[in-house]
Amino acid sequence: MTKLKFSLSMSLDGFVAGPDQTREDPLGKGGMALHDWAFAAWKTDGPDTEYANLWSKNVGAVIMGRNMFGPIRGPWGGEEWNGWWGEDPPYHTPVFVLTHHAREPLEMQGGTTFHFVTDGIEAAFDRATDAAAGRDISIGGGASTARQYLKAGLVDEMAIHVTPVLLGRGERLFDDVEDSLDGYECVELVSSPSVAHFTYARKNR
Amino acid sequence: MTKLKFSLSMSLDGFVAGPDQTREDPLGKGGMALHDWAFAAWKTDGPDTEYANLWSKNVGAVIMGRNMFGPIRGPWGGEEWNGWWGEDPPYHTPVFVLTHHAREPLEMQGGTTFHFVTDGIEAAFDRATDAAAGRDISIGGGASTARQYLKAGLVDEMAIHVTPVLLGRGERLFDDVEDSLDGYECVELVSSPSVAHFTYARKNR
Repeated sequence: MTKLKFSLSMSLDGFVAGPDQTREDPLGKGGMALHDWAFAAWKTDGPDTEYANLWSKNVGAVIMGRNMFGPIRGPWGGEEWNGWWGEDPPYHTPVFVLTHHAREPLEMQGGTTFHFVTDGIEAAFDRATDAAAGRDISIGGGASTARQYLKAGLVDEMAIHVTPVLLGRGERLFDDVEDSLDGYECVELVSSPSVAHFTYARKNR
Repeated sequence: MTKLKFSLSMSLDGFVAGPDQTREDPLGKGGMALHDWAFAAWKTDGPDTEYANLWSKNVGAVIMGRNMFGPIRGPWGGEEWNGWWGEDPPYHTPVFVLTHHAREPLEMQGGTTFHFVTDGIEAAFDRATDAAAGRDISIGGGASTARQYLKAGLVDEMAIHVTPVLLGRGERLFDDVEDSLDGYECVELVSSPSVAHFTYARKNR
């Protein structure tokens, strides 16, 4: 059965991105440091590596927010923004981008096609479920997108990688979610000296 | 040299106490679960035990907020509230309670005396420094008191014990602290399957 899940790096003070996203700072000021552990893990194949790979493990479709796709706000305009990731993005699956502004699908190399969904998170979920064809759907981010799916009660699994980074400001993952967290239990907590991995699953499913 | 420090348990979503503190719920709704790991550690003397003991290690004085001392708000009135801890509180040192309402010092058994400080956090810090006589000062809590000292730039060390508990609401530790966190570096991250211990120290001190 297809599960909806996310795997996100979070600062100890609760942020999954820094403030002031720009083309030069896709993760906002200081936000890139949240992923230092993952880059190190990919280089060394150590205890954190399997956690660094979770975001794409058994994933057949990805959902992301508009701001994760790019720094542009409002209508797409004439600018040819095709994402942060170059010609061959790392997804290699359909990617559903939540936006208020329609745009034709964008087929990249390597099997990644960006679909722009203007009719809401449930529509994106339905389309991603079809596209995933039995594999899982990964919420790529950012915080707002993850929160919306949490509040809709649609998230099955969460992997949260708490790093020692202190950002002080930015995009907070668990803000205003309140009762939406009631149904989860921690099924694993492990850490290296660089990062602590908390994995949650929905109870009674 | 006397250091100002705190050792606090925090839910993964950032809270050090639940909402709606009452006489029956000193840590707010659900807040007691933040300390399950410590109670277990005291029983078993396992890998978490030294972290559960940090709050009082080499501590010669304690500072706490009014709400950590009791559920009463406003003037002390006629009610004889002497804290949550019975006749022999676990501090065994002077404890400085931040409040807007003057009250005579309250001497308990076992060496704990509560002093009620009405002239601000720096005055409490000065008095606690004298009382600590070379040992450290521990900020007992809650979130608001820890934040005030962070924002004043007075905190030397932080131990934050991140538990897998998800509260959804309550008293958030790192709220509106922004640049106050700039000067800290993580000097240790270790975890058991129950809790991840993050220890920070001020840089260049």
